[in-house]
Amino acid sequence: MAPVGTQQRGSHLLDAALGLLAEEGFAALTMRSVAARADVSLAQVQYYFRTKAELVAAAFDHAGNQFLASLHTVAAGEPSLERLRRIVWLWLPLDPEREKRARVWLAYAATAATETSLAAANTALDADLRAWFAEQLDVLQHAGQIHPRLDTVGAAAQLLALIDGVTVHCLVLPIGDRPALVDRVLGAWIDHLTGPA
Amino acid sequence: MAPVGTQQRGSHLLDAALGLLAEEGFAALTMRSVAARADVSLAQVQYYFRTKAELVAAAFDHAGNQFLASLHTVAAGEPSLERLRRIVWLWLPLDPEREKRARVWLAYAATAATETSLAAANTALDADLRAWFAEQLDVLQHAGQIHPRLDTVGAAAQLLALIDGVTVHCLVLPIGDRPALVDRVLGAWIDHLTGPA
Repeated sequence: MAPVGTQQRGSHLLDAALGLLAEEGFAALTMRSVAARADVSLAQVQYYFRTKAELVAAAFDHAGNQFLASLHTVAAGEPSLERLRRIVWLWLPLDPEREKRARVWLAYAATAATETSLAAANTALDADLRAWFAEQLDVLQHAGQIHPRLDTVGAAAQLLALIDGVTVHCLVLPIGDRPALVDRVLGAWIDHLTGPA
Repeated sequence: MAPVGTQQRGSHLLDAALGLLAEEGFAALTMRSVAARADVSLAQVQYYFRTKAELVAAAFDHAGNQFLASLHTVAAGEPSLERLRRIVWLWLPLDPEREKRARVWLAYAATAATETSLAAANTALDADLRAWFAEQLDVLQHAGQIHPRLDTVGAAAQLLALIDGVTVHCLVLPIGDRPALVDRVLGAWIDHLTGPA
């Protein structure tokens, strides 16, 4: 019989895991530290997640769903470069909430690089994000808002690399120094989509 | 009195630490696991490095010096877009040696995001790399090889973000799938430096 709350797959434990990842990094995340932070027994964590890798994958998925909810709010408006900019900025660690999400992502990406059980899911997510950005760019291109000869598939791959690279760079900068870097790298890139001045 | 081999600051230990970081990630790196891998006593590791953070910082520095040695070989030629391309490609995890270095970098960057003792050094390194790329782009601009109105400082920040973002993406891809992503993201970006076709 399925336990009560199965749909959330232990979301109180996932919130605890995300908090640990964000504040102390992957090395601090253990089945035991998650139990302590969520104020439950170790056995309860093990009931939901058999291994640390399973817990990390579920926690990242959980963070992804929270992110998609905020994305859909912004993505609901009329397609425009300004909307694209707002979507891209959602990713970047420019306030404490987005910083927490970015730290979770970086801990996950670093783990996936050495844990083959996570690599495939991470690769699939990257591919989905590129496809989604390419669609957004196609819509803007059809609406005449970006250069007609822009390779939208290549540009989408560039955009995802810029977002992830700038995120890594921002996370070691004081929060007040981040907007300037983000504008220089991603603001300039988006402005450039309209084509040669 | 300084111990024998102080100049290398225990480079046999640093090689062991880099091997662990590359193969198993930051969580597997402890003073004890480094001692075991280098086949020395724990006390010997503690003699050179008082804390794990100190060891990680020294290991990353050591990897950086190895990298700079290979960089100077490539950077010795005449300035050209082809040389810039060769320099950029040195960063990317396209063979086992560069993959190892990229994994070390990613483990370090993920750690620096939560360990404030590493963040300042990482920020300074990023700033140095941006300045170095901006210089390379200035030289190419003066030689008429890239667009005369290109903002070389902004482009250097974009380039570093693209390198780091693509590196994160490559590390979860099978090695055979990486060159296509690298060409699409960084090859296209470098080709674009000459200006509108």
